Amino acid sequence: MFSILPSARLRPSPFFDAVQAEGLSTGSIYNRMILPGSFGAPEAEYWRLINRVSMWDVGVERQVQISGPDAARLAQILSPRDLSKCKIGQGKYIPMCNHAGVLINDPILLKLAEDKFWFSIADSDVWLWARSIAGERGLDVDISEPDVSPLAVQGPLAEDVIASIFGDWVRSVKYFWFRETEIEGIPVAVQRSGWSKQGGFEIYLRDGTKGDQLWNIIKEAGAPYGIGPGSPSTPERTESGLVSVGGDTDEQTNPFEVRLGQYVDLDVPDDTIGIHALRRIAKEGPKRHQLGLKLEGDVPAPLGFSREKIFHNGRLIGDMTNCVWSYRMSQNIGYALIDRTVAAGETVEIMRASGSVSAELVELPFL
Amino acid sequence: MFSILPSARLRPSPFFDAVQAEGLSTGSIYNRMILPGSFGAPEAEYWRLINRVSMWDVGVERQVQISGPDAARLAQILSPRDLSKCKIGQGKYIPMCNHAGVLINDPILLKLAEDKFWFSIADSDVWLWARSIAGERGLDVDISEPDVSPLAVQGPLAEDVIASIFGDWVRSVKYFWFRETEIEGIPVAVQRSGWSKQGGFEIYLRDGTKGDQLWNIIKEAGAPYGIGPGSPSTPERTESGLVSVGGDTDEQTNPFEVRLGQYVDLDVPDDTIGIHALRRIAKEGPKRHQLGLKLEGDVPAPLGFSREKIFHNGRLIGDMTNCVWSYRMSQNIGYALIDRTVAAGETVEIMRASGSVSAELVELPFL
Repeated sequence: MFSILPSARLRPSPFFDAVQAEGLSTGSIYNRMILPGSFGAPEAEYWRLINRVSMWDVGVERQVQISGPDAARLAQILSPRDLSKCKIGQGKYIPMCNHAGVLINDPILLKLAEDKFWFSIADSDVWLWARSIAGERGLDVDISEPDVSPLAVQGPLAEDVIASIFGDWVRSVKYFWFRETEIEGIPVAVQRSGWSKQGGFEIYLRDGTKGDQLWNIIKEAGAPYGIGPGSPSTPERTESGLVSVGGDTDEQTNPFEVRLGQYVDLDVPDDTIGIHALRRIAKEGPKRHQLGLKLEGDVPAPLGFSREKIFHNGRLIGDMTNCVWSYRMSQNIGYALIDRTVAAGETVEIMRASGSVSAELVELPFL
Repeated sequence: MFSILPSARLRPSPFFDAVQAEGLSTGSIYNRMILPGSFGAPEAEYWRLINRVSMWDVGVERQVQISGPDAARLAQILSPRDLSKCKIGQGKYIPMCNHAGVLINDPILLKLAEDKFWFSIADSDVWLWARSIAGERGLDVDISEPDVSPLAVQGPLAEDVIASIFGDWVRSVKYFWFRETEIEGIPVAVQRSGWSKQGGFEIYLRDGTKGDQLWNIIKEAGAPYGIGPGSPSTPERTESGLVSVGGDTDEQTNPFEVRLGQYVDLDVPDDTIGIHALRRIAKEGPKRHQLGLKLEGDVPAPLGFSREKIFHNGRLIGDMTNCVWSYRMSQNIGYALIDRTVAAGETVEIMRASGSVSAELVELPFL
């Protein structure tokens, strides 16, 4: 595959020098930033996440900061999840929808103060969206991008590593809660979160000049635990049933179709964007659902850049939105976004570049 | 530099198979699509654009289609350029701004019918933006992405190539005007446009299954003229003074700062987004301006992923937003976005990774 051309249109994170020194070999672009991929040994990187601890430059999870007198109101307007009980120091996973109830992002919201929030975003321009709504509704808010860059530490030993750096208080931090603190003079926020199901933390660096320093603090503290560089893992996140908005979703996908209905509160205020559409969809039932796919064959055959069509008894029922070799299951697995009338247990045919491949539909997560 | 990882989150254009067959070696991601870069011989690709004719997969210029009863009204709301005299078949270059007058995109608008427009966009989520405004204002429009993918043919011989395919009528097409037609049964729109100053056309493919076929039609027709694969050229666009929104601009940049004031009509309707801010900026004068930089030294030293700081008499005055070796000028050239009090003719210092480098400020374009 082709290599990436540098440009000021794209931005490296404060950890990029450290990541390059680790031997970055593949990557992607996400929110117009560099998302590291592999460091040359994808399978070893996978097992490190599953069995030990891995550290990831996830600076691509850019922060949209909303502050000012109307900040709490705008945060709720943008979120079809009830924020009324959200406390300072708490985070929440938010499906963000447009007026039609279509998913446009799924940030983690962090409440830093009664009038200050961060949205730690997936890959779309939430700045444009939030500024548009604020401008149209005449809200008194400031929307900016603070100097904040997350670094994820993930895996069963992640808590031990983070506790060895910050202290044992981190062991009692609840999921998505965070604390603002510092380490060796570097201001950070420490949150229990991360895009894997192996457990861990995200350290939000609050001084972009200290990326190398923070990277090395974690690398050194993690050495006794076998830490090494990695990145959000497609095999692990697929096995674990995590959703990638923009990858697993299309221009019509609502939260109910991709197992995110539990994060939608239908009784949020009527001025919440998309809530009228979401109430209607909840009542009528979504037309599609997301299931797992176990593909026949014993040779790794990951998805390329394009979704692949799924057929059931000769009828087109939807798309395979990702596909990857599962090291733990020793088979190719993927996600189906398909007609809700076709259920788990059925066998389907996927039109791949190599020809038609059979697959079994299963409930998610796989593991 | 690292190589790109395939993912369904990113999308290839219909020309991607053909582009890969041509030997794509570098590229980028733009609007979550693959933007081809070089085919292994950057200098030869540059001279082909300057002296002959080059063909580019610019499917990344994704189309935001706005149709319906309020389409014309929404198009004007989104555009601080007067569209009242825009005719069907005409295109216009549009600086698109947010409520604060900050540039968020600079599409080419194509008027296909009184109630149907395409915005052929630069790298930001104009879908989110347009849908947000339509939703907030309750406009009766449909906003979608049509099956349309531009392919650019650029260079002094481009008109001859396009005329040999479509007929001599193309020679009388005015800049940014277009005609809907077909070639060998493939529906296309042919527009005089393209992101270079070497002249040429963009062919908007309207059937994504025919990418290979259209690529090969142009490749074969262009063979006698010396056509070959290329991509939007950083050296050429810099020499020619073209702006890359997102690369040459930041979160505060308004059109007046980057020589786009001529495309802002201050008497557009009051409900046009950003017009109040733009009128104020026009009255007060912008705080920064964009000038060219001629750097000392005779070794190519392109910009990497980060802007570089510019100093004048020891004072920080702004950023170098791009820098590239000019094959025609035999020196490194770039753009400065700096304090308006420092003018062309002055000498500045740029803080580069290699150390401080002197440069002369000049008016744009270079050539």
